[in-house]
Amino acid sequence: MSLLRDDRGLHYGDGLFETIRFVGRQAPFWDWHMQRLLLGSDRLGLPRPDVSTLLRRTRRAAAPLTQSIVKLIWTAGSGLRGYARPLPMRGRALLYATRYTPVSSAGLRLRWCTTRLGAQPALAGIKHLNRLEQVLARAEWAGSEFDEGLMLNMQGQVIAATAANLFARVDGRWFTPPVNDSGIAGVARRWLMSQVDVTESALTPAALCSAQACVLTNAVRGPQRVASLDSVEWSVDPQVQSLIDNWSALFAVNCDVSSTL
Amino acid sequence: MSLLRDDRGLHYGDGLFETIRFVGRQAPFWDWHMQRLLLGSDRLGLPRPDVSTLLRRTRRAAAPLTQSIVKLIWTAGSGLRGYARPLPMRGRALLYATRYTPVSSAGLRLRWCTTRLGAQPALAGIKHLNRLEQVLARAEWAGSEFDEGLMLNMQGQVIAATAANLFARVDGRWFTPPVNDSGIAGVARRWLMSQVDVTESALTPAALCSAQACVLTNAVRGPQRVASLDSVEWSVDPQVQSLIDNWSALFAVNCDVSSTL
Repeated sequence: MSLLRDDRGLHYGDGLFETIRFVGRQAPFWDWHMQRLLLGSDRLGLPRPDVSTLLRRTRRAAAPLTQSIVKLIWTAGSGLRGYARPLPMRGRALLYATRYTPVSSAGLRLRWCTTRLGAQPALAGIKHLNRLEQVLARAEWAGSEFDEGLMLNMQGQVIAATAANLFARVDGRWFTPPVNDSGIAGVARRWLMSQVDVTESALTPAALCSAQACVLTNAVRGPQRVASLDSVEWSVDPQVQSLIDNWSALFAVNCDVSSTL
Repeated sequence: MSLLRDDRGLHYGDGLFETIRFVGRQAPFWDWHMQRLLLGSDRLGLPRPDVSTLLRRTRRAAAPLTQSIVKLIWTAGSGLRGYARPLPMRGRALLYATRYTPVSSAGLRLRWCTTRLGAQPALAGIKHLNRLEQVLARAEWAGSEFDEGLMLNMQGQVIAATAANLFARVDGRWFTPPVNDSGIAGVARRWLMSQVDVTESALTPAALCSAQACVLTNAVRGPQRVASLDSVEWSVDPQVQSLIDNWSALFAVNCDVSSTL
């Protein structure tokens, strides 16, 4: 009998996830989410999920909601006790659909987290289930004074927010930290890098504080402007607003959505 | 409704585990397992489990088996989507009892793993559920040629096997790697350090290969002698055999076990 209580995702975090925004039955970034999921499966040595089955199931989960977020977990499935995976492995897909809540247009208020991100090239970039670093960082504050926290690596370079990638415009050029040693290669990060010229480069806290504009991105909320980082403040920026508008247009609700699928 | 599919252990590895050997209803190292579990709960900011309830439940799970292994998972419980933990958090305990399989007295045959352990002081030492590094290392070999694999940290120092701590006797002195940056502070590691004089010290592969004797420890199998590491071989060592005998005596099945509880 294959039970969730025996799932290797629960026992070891042996799996991946994607959090996908839908408009009706359509997910504009479906292909990119699936590319990352397949890359992650290969990197971890998991079986690849059948993408067409996933699409059918996620659409069914999303269908009752006009705008939704579908979280998809893909694990190594049930296994025996011990780190050795069963042969053959049978992956398990779990789906969670929730209503999409529109994002506030107020800028984000950020803080620094003291929890640092360790370097692990074998796990960096992919969206695996070992997320204690992010959980510990997010647990550093409560209440509504701050929207997100920024995390440094062990060398003191800025990597990302707990649940978003980071972009900063310094001297007119956009920068984002590389995700080769830690951090996640976000879908909205990839989108933003397709919209403007971005250099992947280590970013110090000092450089970030001197930036003309800062943006956080994730696949649920898209690009969001950063209004403050502790006592540093940024005003509304036309280029950032344009990026936000372009992203929003991709998720516009209109009558043609379901017919285009 | 609180469902396992919403558990933060599954979603983020937000939890801990212990693997506890029982003889009948008695677990000789129960207190040490609970001390580590409580320390881990504090370190992760999880609610502390009620130890007396856990003892009652694990004994019930272990009772049908003469000798058993009870795996205990303690998670942050069910939660909403996102890294932020719910307030209040209600921990969840899951128990898995299996029959104890006696350990072979043949020495272990080890290999080197290419997957390295990242440094993360916030998570080192405790037995949390983020175990992808160990899973990836264990996936590096199949078949029965090797029993375990040794893992290095990013600096090339030996830290541990995928599921056991490591001890080496070099020039007559016992050494074991520290577990401040990576690795787990094993219960059997603690026991061995109470039996012989052990220095916690970084261990290079070269030093390990020059050792007079090597031992792996975990709470299920106790101390086990290492017979080989790739082409390096070690013969039976009287001091190691004495440690193995001392451990085994703690788990001897006798009629008094249940009456001593």
